[in-house]
Amino acid sequence: MPVTDWTDADLAAAAALRDRALKGTSAYEHVSSLVTEVGPRLAGSAGDEAAVRWAMNRLGKLGFTGVRTQDVLVPRWIRGTTEVTLLGPAPQPLVAATLGGSIGTAEEGIEAGVIEFDSLASLSTGQASDIKNKIVFINERMERTRDGEGYGKVVKNRVQGASVAANLGAVAVVIRSVGTSDERFAHTGRMVYDVSAPRIPAFSLSNPDADVLSRQLKTNKQTRLRVKSSAREMPSTWSANVIGEIPGTDRAGEIVLLGAHLDSWDLGQGALDDGAGVAIVVEAARLISRMDRKPSRTVRVVLFANEEFGLSGAKEYARLIGEEHAKHVLAMEADTGIGPVIRLETQVAPESLGAIEKMRKAMEPLVIDSGVNTASGGADLGPLRALGVPVLDPVLDATLYFDVHHTMNDTLAKVDAKTLDQTVAAYAVAAYLAATKQGDFGRLSPVPFDR
Amino acid sequence: MPVTDWTDADLAAAAALRDRALKGTSAYEHVSSLVTEVGPRLAGSAGDEAAVRWAMNRLGKLGFTGVRTQDVLVPRWIRGTTEVTLLGPAPQPLVAATLGGSIGTAEEGIEAGVIEFDSLASLSTGQASDIKNKIVFINERMERTRDGEGYGKVVKNRVQGASVAANLGAVAVVIRSVGTSDERFAHTGRMVYDVSAPRIPAFSLSNPDADVLSRQLKTNKQTRLRVKSSAREMPSTWSANVIGEIPGTDRAGEIVLLGAHLDSWDLGQGALDDGAGVAIVVEAARLISRMDRKPSRTVRVVLFANEEFGLSGAKEYARLIGEEHAKHVLAMEADTGIGPVIRLETQVAPESLGAIEKMRKAMEPLVIDSGVNTASGGADLGPLRALGVPVLDPVLDATLYFDVHHTMNDTLAKVDAKTLDQTVAAYAVAAYLAATKQGDFGRLSPVPFDR
Repeated sequence: MPVTDWTDADLAAAAALRDRALKGTSAYEHVSSLVTEVGPRLAGSAGDEAAVRWAMNRLGKLGFTGVRTQDVLVPRWIRGTTEVTLLGPAPQPLVAATLGGSIGTAEEGIEAGVIEFDSLASLSTGQASDIKNKIVFINERMERTRDGEGYGKVVKNRVQGASVAANLGAVAVVIRSVGTSDERFAHTGRMVYDVSAPRIPAFSLSNPDADVLSRQLKTNKQTRLRVKSSAREMPSTWSANVIGEIPGTDRAGEIVLLGAHLDSWDLGQGALDDGAGVAIVVEAARLISRMDRKPSRTVRVVLFANEEFGLSGAKEYARLIGEEHAKHVLAMEADTGIGPVIRLETQVAPESLGAIEKMRKAMEPLVIDSGVNTASGGADLGPLRALGVPVLDPVLDATLYFDVHHTMNDTLAKVDAKTLDQTVAAYAVAAYLAATKQGDFGRLSPVPFDR
Repeated sequence: MPVTDWTDADLAAAAALRDRALKGTSAYEHVSSLVTEVGPRLAGSAGDEAAVRWAMNRLGKLGFTGVRTQDVLVPRWIRGTTEVTLLGPAPQPLVAATLGGSIGTAEEGIEAGVIEFDSLASLSTGQASDIKNKIVFINERMERTRDGEGYGKVVKNRVQGASVAANLGAVAVVIRSVGTSDERFAHTGRMVYDVSAPRIPAFSLSNPDADVLSRQLKTNKQTRLRVKSSAREMPSTWSANVIGEIPGTDRAGEIVLLGAHLDSWDLGQGALDDGAGVAIVVEAARLISRMDRKPSRTVRVVLFANEEFGLSGAKEYARLIGEEHAKHVLAMEADTGIGPVIRLETQVAPESLGAIEKMRKAMEPLVIDSGVNTASGGADLGPLRALGVPVLDPVLDATLYFDVHHTMNDTLAKVDAKTLDQTVAAYAVAAYLAATKQGDFGRLSPVPFDR
């Protein structure tokens, strides 16, 4: 009788693995250790270096094999100090963050009138005569959704706002934070300058501070802001991807990849972004290593350098593996917080969808919906997917994620151990089944990777 | 037939006043205006000056009579910059606040080992040999309660911690924030130096940052901190109490006092502390001024200067009124956020408790419990109570208040307009009934005021 996908013994082992994870894992302890012993770890910083050492030590101690690094060139942006002040009879300091990659200002800062727009689209159609020499304020609120879809709709304000405003003569741009919380934290994140536009400094305001500015503008069109930043770009420097493996048995040359990123923004502790992801993939692989029934394929954990500032770790990984990409049977990433997993999306060969459905059934007590087969798989998997590697994309509940994402408030206090265990269970089952499956998940059509 | 306390017409007017308030008031708009047009207003700062002007303009515009100021001398403490860094392989910045009144450090800061205590009591019994040249960390968590009782239990860490630690040879003190939130905000507030103790700088850490430090100390007793502050004391300066009245009819010389404080801490917007209180008492009085049936006694709103830094506004008010204190029939303060009112406490002559119960019945749809007759009435009423003025103390629901109190996160986003209306309704009914009551609420035994 031909075996399709998995034997009953494979599926029973996966179920036992799942139940083992639900009894309690060490995932919380991994995050706690990372944020306590290292803390913030912006690409290229001392914290980033410490994180690489932390990861090698941890993977080594947990019994991973082939623990190694890949050197990765990363940008080195320094935030310096940020001051945004609402001028008036009593100048009022606003809680703000300089956006990642922004230039700084001269020491005395920039003082100017403010013009408000409700979106990047309305800014784009603004009049240069109204905008010239002003500070542009893009005041668009991110919507809270379960799968974080609201983020994609407004993050372009952060990425493109400065250059769109600069092309219309603005001297600086200030955006409402791309985040859902009404706590007073400003949301940072990467912005990008168009080569054709003048470079102007870019800031975000916390939601309550965007409210203050907007209310001021309603009663006083002459409202002025002063913005100051000592942000600067240093020469690029070196960081590293950290890799460790749970070796396969009869098909050890084939790889199931579990990815997360080791770097974080500098403002918070990087507990959710992406300490949680690191913990999920490390712990899922560790639990697999403890099984009696070993996986046929190798489970490779890759902790990518520099996701936040241009994905250079992910690009370098895809470059360095060369033709080995063809041996990557499936790739999964964890980079949207602690979970739980609510849906299983994929981008695999259509003939593998039956296997994906069996995989989902193996997770059944976790209550995970089926999803589309057009998933991206996550930022760090982009270069691999472009090479044709199929991806499994567990969608994590992100209802609260964007309350703290990219803010000072991304701390261990937001990590719930039980939820993390549920997510580990789903990742472990998926990785184990991918590593034991008869046959693969097909290949995707290669496309150029242009991010 | 003799009238006891109130006529039916008085009670009917009070009920109509209550229902009018519950339909919606301008209280939210008062807070919004104060935090938008003024913002933070630490005693003696430019914001404090702007707040005095704001209050005079607002009371004038709302039709209060006798709008005036009383000059008040206030301390002028400058926070400057604060840096607390957890030293280690990758130094980790901790979210901290310099405590109000603390001295600063030399420019290079203070770097030392850390010794942790779970309370001020255990610090007090610590060994000088263990503590000498260390930074003392008092790690006691405030308990969340409905009436804010948890605050009183731990606030002594903030007030007395520095001098207790200094007497044992510590070089600085760092306390867990006196607040209930796990968001990453440090709680400021006043600390006081004993004259007999060396002066050392004092800081608070946000709860998540206190967690990081405590976890570090568990695995590494050699953990070191660097603390830096440019805090300094300037010469005392002038601020002002702002007073406005709704004049009484036949007993206009007798006064029902409604108090709140105009100053705030510098870190937040002072929306809850005490913008909400200002709005509650101003709006309660304004609604009374709009009634057809005028109160017999004068309702006097006093917006006190400098509650936060030593109560000099309250003390000066009590001094300046001289013998007029005997004409103060009842005093009420609002200084614990937006409400709702959950209980009616008092300190009045026992024979007036029947009238207080009738007052509570007049608020009935608001669901307010009766309370003790040993209430303090609030910080700004201390000097008046010491002179014998009876107080009514509406206890506000403070379950969430200490999440934001004295932090950067005290913003308008935390003000719910409907809740504020309910609180205004209770204050308006109480003030109106006090101002129409036949007979008074007795007098308290005068005591020395020593805060």
